[in-house]
Amino acid sequence: MRFTTLTHRLDDGVLTVTLDRPDHLNAFTVEMADELEATFAGVNEQDDVRAVIVTGAGRAFCAGMDLNRPGNVFGLDEARRPTLDDMADLTDPDLRRVRDTGGRVTLAIHACRKPVIAAINGAAVGIGATMTLAMDARLAASRARIGFVFGRLGITPEAASTWFLPRIVGLPAALDLVYSADVLGAGEAAARGLVRSVHEPGDLLAAARELADRWTKGRSAVSTALTRQMMYRNAGRPHPADAHRVDSLAMFYTSIGDGAEGVAAFREKREPDFRASASKDLPPFYEKWF
Amino acid sequence: MRFTTLTHRLDDGVLTVTLDRPDHLNAFTVEMADELEATFAGVNEQDDVRAVIVTGAGRAFCAGMDLNRPGNVFGLDEARRPTLDDMADLTDPDLRRVRDTGGRVTLAIHACRKPVIAAINGAAVGIGATMTLAMDARLAASRARIGFVFGRLGITPEAASTWFLPRIVGLPAALDLVYSADVLGAGEAAARGLVRSVHEPGDLLAAARELADRWTKGRSAVSTALTRQMMYRNAGRPHPADAHRVDSLAMFYTSIGDGAEGVAAFREKREPDFRASASKDLPPFYEKWF
Amino acid sequence: MRFTTLTHRLDDGVLTVTLDRPDHLNAFTVEMADELEATFAGVNEQDDVRAVIVTGAGRAFCAGMDLNRPGNVFGLDEARRPTLDDMADLTDPDLRRVRDTGGRVTLAIHACRKPVIAAINGAAVGIGATMTLAMDARLAASRARIGFVFGRLGITPEAASTWFLPRIVGLPAALDLVYSADVLGAGEAAARGLVRSVHEPGDLLAAARELADRWTKGRSAVSTALTRQMMYRNAGRPHPADAHRVDSLAMFYTSIGDGAEGVAAFREKREPDFRASASKDLPPFYEKWF
Repeated sequence: MRFTTLTHRLDDGVLTVTLDRPDHLNAFTVEMADELEATFAGVNEQDDVRAVIVTGAGRAFCAGMDLNRPGNVFGLDEARRPTLDDMADLTDPDLRRVRDTGGRVTLAIHACRKPVIAAINGAAVGIGATMTLAMDARLAASRARIGFVFGRLGITPEAASTWFLPRIVGLPAALDLVYSADVLGAGEAAARGLVRSVHEPGDLLAAARELADRWTKGRSAVSTALTRQMMYRNAGRPHPADAHRVDSLAMFYTSIGDGAEGVAAFREKREPDFRASASKDLPPFYEKWF
Repeated sequence: MRFTTLTHRLDDGVLTVTLDRPDHLNAFTVEMADELEATFAGVNEQDDVRAVIVTGAGRAFCAGMDLNRPGNVFGLDEARRPTLDDMADLTDPDLRRVRDTGGRVTLAIHACRKPVIAAINGAAVGIGATMTLAMDARLAASRARIGFVFGRLGITPEAASTWFLPRIVGLPAALDLVYSADVLGAGEAAARGLVRSVHEPGDLLAAARELADRWTKGRSAVSTALTRQMMYRNAGRPHPADAHRVDSLAMFYTSIGDGAEGVAAFREKREPDFRASASKDLPPFYEKWF
Repeated sequence: MRFTTLTHRLDDGVLTVTLDRPDHLNAFTVEMADELEATFAGVNEQDDVRAVIVTGAGRAFCAGMDLNRPGNVFGLDEARRPTLDDMADLTDPDLRRVRDTGGRVTLAIHACRKPVIAAINGAAVGIGATMTLAMDARLAASRARIGFVFGRLGITPEAASTWFLPRIVGLPAALDLVYSADVLGAGEAAARGLVRSVHEPGDLLAAARELADRWTKGRSAVSTALTRQMMYRNAGRPHPADAHRVDSLAMFYTSIGDGAEGVAAFREKREPDFRASASKDLPPFYEKWF
């Protein structure tokens, strides 16, 4: 795939993905969505990537949907565009084809086998804000501004943001952020628990890098991939017994693989040499779970 | 409906509902439950209401169930009151008729298409506390006292409070509030995340009003109604893909309606003129979702 | 049952369970798991126990799985140990027998009819940390250290910890704790919401005892048991109407039993005399719910 809206840089296991339309404040397009989906699907196959950082080129992170060239944002064949009447029947096949573009991106991030960190270097508005909610941490430059501004435009939050946001900041803060449609400064975003830490703009990427290393360097790629999915999936399961079922198999599976090496290294007081691959060595039941 | 326990005042789109039995500290009765249910159902049909504030007359917000005249709190025909034996079989039709009165009120608030704000002017105890959990924010007067005191009476929390409370304050704080049955001062309630902000008693309603305006003034009634339900419903769904399905239809639907006006106004740098009605213009699939 | 890894002390309704292998830093074994499961199952039948405190003998709380004598940690008949090929089919009966040992303990704690308090007197690592997540509060000595260190060993979090942890500290903090595998000091654990309060080592058990009394002394055992299960179970249910169904029956049931005494005592301004038993008087529908 040739990328026109993103640039990629891989440095010692950490892939930095830069939203790269700086003349348009990295505004989101259907092309960018396609390229982000392809990037995150590709990351799952690339064993030399252990973590991903997403940031923006220039002064903004992502100024929301590009209203000047949104493209086919619902992925519809214009000749078969659903009518309002179709909307009465949720099983209508045309209706089932309607897909929010932002959600395509956050579901791809959600399915990623590696930790993903948002390095919010500037304005993150609309989909620029919601896409970061599916990432595992949000670090912000002091000049960053974050807003769930959908209500100002008469539309609704998207990109599965109403699933992620209450789990990140709690239900009352989530309601306030979407009702008010306020654009928060970096400090206020941190005070609300939306952002993990605030940095001088010049220090942001190094801080994101440091976190990526702390989370993944020297770790088992399979253990990390399973842990990520267990956390997101079990958070939504009704009963801890549901988590127990998954835990039992994941623990059993990893104890045969990298876990055996991990325990041996611990007992021998040496660094472990983990070899399992997140592209090839996930357990056969992985797809059924996640 | 003639109201005997509540008073209503509509002022520029904000409906203030006052629990109005001040000689009984606004204690809750089955009549009050019926009137609150009717109020919230009615609000969904009243396009001139964009937000609701609930407060109490006099010194208290609501001192809990009126133990002197509780009424038929489980909604049962006394001649067919379930016995303990009936309780073995959850499918027993008599048992299925048992309904906690407080829950009738919180489910009506939950189904409201407009944001709802609690202005807790004084003591809020038992159902006086739990009814506020289904509201979108809790503001308190400095003299307010809030307690989930069920344990002191040998009964259990009700009004779906065990669904709402952990989502508002987290699981450990929720457990502590119900086990301890403590009556918290306003400041402590704010420190635990139960209350958004604390005000001098004379300033409380103005603060609630300001928040109601900030959340709803100039906004699309349909976008707000959908956003409210998406937040509460998606918070309980197992997987972000479930939210994505809802998002896709909501975004598509609003983009045809008020969203088209919102985007046009944004591009033309003018205020939007939203016209969709929360009583008439919700999408046909709304009831199936929520 | 003769206990070899635990000691028990019952004092005025509060059972203190001590992990008692101090020469091995109370490291976890399959025997200890069996004894903890038996302890919590037994507590449900012992009406003279109203709350449980779990602590460790000596300097540690629990240093994790005893890697020197783990035992049969997956509960498998070695002759029928599943192979990797078996793992493709989640319905394989051999696979269904795989059970994470830590999860057996946390599910037993989860099913407990009495509040459970962790008094974390020292290092709590691996299963030593995750077993406390199913308890209702975590109090820590100032010298305590808490770490979800699974990632360092190439294995995954267990004991249903990915269900409990995000509900306790929120999703971003939960992800950070398991990815980083950091061992936190007591103060940092409190700052993250993992620990309720920090105490001098000599004051820890008294503080846990005080909390146990505040939560349960003079309370209805049935009301407390129902409240505990309602909180954990309703936190995972999709819709508040699901909670309402449970609330209605629980409130109706308790209003016939200890609730009638509680209301009478309240009206007569005297202490209630609750008599219902958590071993004998739970409602017949209890097992179907929980």
